[in-house]
Amino acid sequence: MMTIEMIAFDADDTLWHTENIFMTAQLKLNKILEAWAGPKLVQRTLSKIEIGNIAHYGYGYKSYTLSMIETAIELIDGSLSVNIIKDILELGHAMLAADVTLIPGVEETLERLGEKYLMMVITKGDLLEQTSKVNRSGLSCHFSVIEVVSSKSIEAYREILSKLNLDPSRFMMVGNSLPSDIQPVLDLGGIGVHIPADTTWAHEIMDNFDPFQSNYYELEGIKELPGLLEKLK
Amino acid sequence: MMTIEMIAFDADDTLWHTENIFMTAQLKLNKILEAWAGPKLVQRTLSKIEIGNIAHYGYGYKSYTLSMIETAIELIDGSLSVNIIKDILELGHAMLAADVTLIPGVEETLERLGEKYLMMVITKGDLLEQTSKVNRSGLSCHFSVIEVVSSKSIEAYREILSKLNLDPSRFMMVGNSLPSDIQPVLDLGGIGVHIPADTTWAHEIMDNFDPFQSNYYELEGIKELPGLLEKLK
Repeated sequence: MMTIEMIAFDADDTLWHTENIFMTAQLKLNKILEAWAGPKLVQRTLSKIEIGNIAHYGYGYKSYTLSMIETAIELIDGSLSVNIIKDILELGHAMLAADVTLIPGVEETLERLGEKYLMMVITKGDLLEQTSKVNRSGLSCHFSVIEVVSSKSIEAYREILSKLNLDPSRFMMVGNSLPSDIQPVLDLGGIGVHIPADTTWAHEIMDNFDPFQSNYYELEGIKELPGLLEKLK
Repeated sequence: MMTIEMIAFDADDTLWHTENIFMTAQLKLNKILEAWAGPKLVQRTLSKIEIGNIAHYGYGYKSYTLSMIETAIELIDGSLSVNIIKDILELGHAMLAADVTLIPGVEETLERLGEKYLMMVITKGDLLEQTSKVNRSGLSCHFSVIEVVSSKSIEAYREILSKLNLDPSRFMMVGNSLPSDIQPVLDLGGIGVHIPADTTWAHEIMDNFDPFQSNYYELEGIKELPGLLEKLK
């Protein structure tokens, strides 16, 4: 039997779709650069630059825009024109302004769980972008706390739990990323519920994850969460 | 008599210098664009673009880099070359990597206050940039909590106080900005200590501030803070 005091949710690709926004930008960047490089080379270059930039730029659309500009420089160099830079800045603005599309079942599930549990969001990325998405999602009324962190390390979770005075054994984290949402929470003695997304970013794949750890659960969709909570009672 | 439970500090231009990093970047941008526009026009254009971008880009060096690129586009347009974009990206990288230079007296004052008070940082800006500066400052051992917010509104302070279970009347905020660090805290019933910086960004000027509000104090430097706290006891 477990008493859950707080259910924390990851946001991007757990509550709403994000991968499609990156995919759309990638396809448009392929198009912008097609006179100089094929789509595979564009994506390989972008991905290499993006990973190299994460340590100092962090996650988010602004970082992605800067990485797209660096990709254009690397692939076009001397032929770079003002229109290409304008087009890429435009892609960045479109990502920032993109609608927040909820994943099916999220709204009903949060409404149902809100009657019994305290809920919060723990999301990684750019502070302004993430808080703006929470606000535009229409879901903020369900959450008592929104925490945006720059990395989902054990230390980051420990700090949140201590700040909110939460006992790890009564804390459940729900998310689509094993290394960011699940493993650090299990390591702290919390409960980890993995809901895989349709597409998983290369960064978020974890080869050596042990699915037989205690307090680990995997669900197909968020709609199954109330049933899991009933079973754990 | 007052019992202070928590002293919160603003970071940029309260604990360490930031304005000089922006000034250096501005001077270099003037140089990069000098063939097309004089320094006044460059700065007026940058400032206009930057203010227009704050709502969707937020504060920080990455936003500033994107605004510098937009400034170059506006002033040069068709003659924009790849080298100009490379130079501007380089400026952005230099801002991110710039040393954290403490304001004189900060270290000794925090050490002294740490013996008697709980202390935290509340800073506005980019999450990764701000947490990286706190870590590189060598000051993090003095603070029990670091909060990075995207805007220092009354609502943002109210949320922090409630999350940390702090009574506003026992909460002191120390910072260089009247609209961001002082007025919202006074409005909530807290204590506001203003330490003006050498240069104040146009954004942070507040024409209609009333210096006769209760619980408002102005100091010339952080070294005067322990003395003020003694007097308030």
